[in-house]
Amino acid sequence: MISLNHEFSGTHIICDAYEVQETLLVDYNKIESIIKESVSKAGASLIKIIKYSFNKSGFTLVALLKESHISLHTYPERNAIFIDVFTCGRVDPSIIINNILDYYKPLRHNLTTIKRGFYK
Amino acid sequence: MISLNHEFSGTHIICDAYEVQETLLVDYNKIESIIKESVSKAGASLIKIIKYSFNKSGFTLVALLKESHISLHTYPERNAIFIDVFTCGRVDPSIIINNILDYYKPLRHNLTTIKRGFYK
Repeated sequence: MISLNHEFSGTHIICDAYEVQETLLVDYNKIESIIKESVSKAGASLIKIIKYSFNKSGFTLVALLKESHISLHTYPERNAIFIDVFTCGRVDPSIIINNILDYYKPLRHNLTTIKRGFYK
Repeated sequence: MISLNHEFSGTHIICDAYEVQETLLVDYNKIESIIKESVSKAGASLIKIIKYSFNKSGFTLVALLKESHISLHTYPERNAIFIDVFTCGRVDPSIIINNILDYYKPLRHNLTTIKRGFYK
């Protein structure tokens, strides 16, 4: 338990990335340092990373941030990865997404950006 | 490490829910059983739940599923909660979302549904 300024409203970026090298999508260890670097570049605060490896078929990672979360789901057999970055407050999630994409270097990706915390 | 059929492509539902009772949004313990019940109703497989409580200002929960993830971020001071359910394969994420909404009973909520794993 820590006291935090838990800011409301933010931006969620959803990225489906394709044509990624298979070796990167099974590298369960390197990605943790990439996530830490990405969070630091964005000026966000990392609480915890948890990872889970599926036997020979990719892994799942979730990083809890003071400002919300990052998730990755890799599919090496499809050369694909699904990435989410949701940040509340002033942190720009595109800094995190771009740093992760710089690492995976997909030849093709889709981005969807959703503003959250506003009545429709 | 376990061997799993890690299915590709799925549906991500993003829900911003408002006018929720504050007492529910700080109940850090009860929600775990609601998540387990929701996952079971949907026929999904829970790997792990992690939770983090912000002192007096809500909590964050992420549940890793065999089929992807669920995240919750609560804002009791705003009577609001942000919920994500992303499932790959045949699991219907709306079963999970609806079960969680049945618990929180927001007076107002937005839903955004995104199909993932398809080239655009």
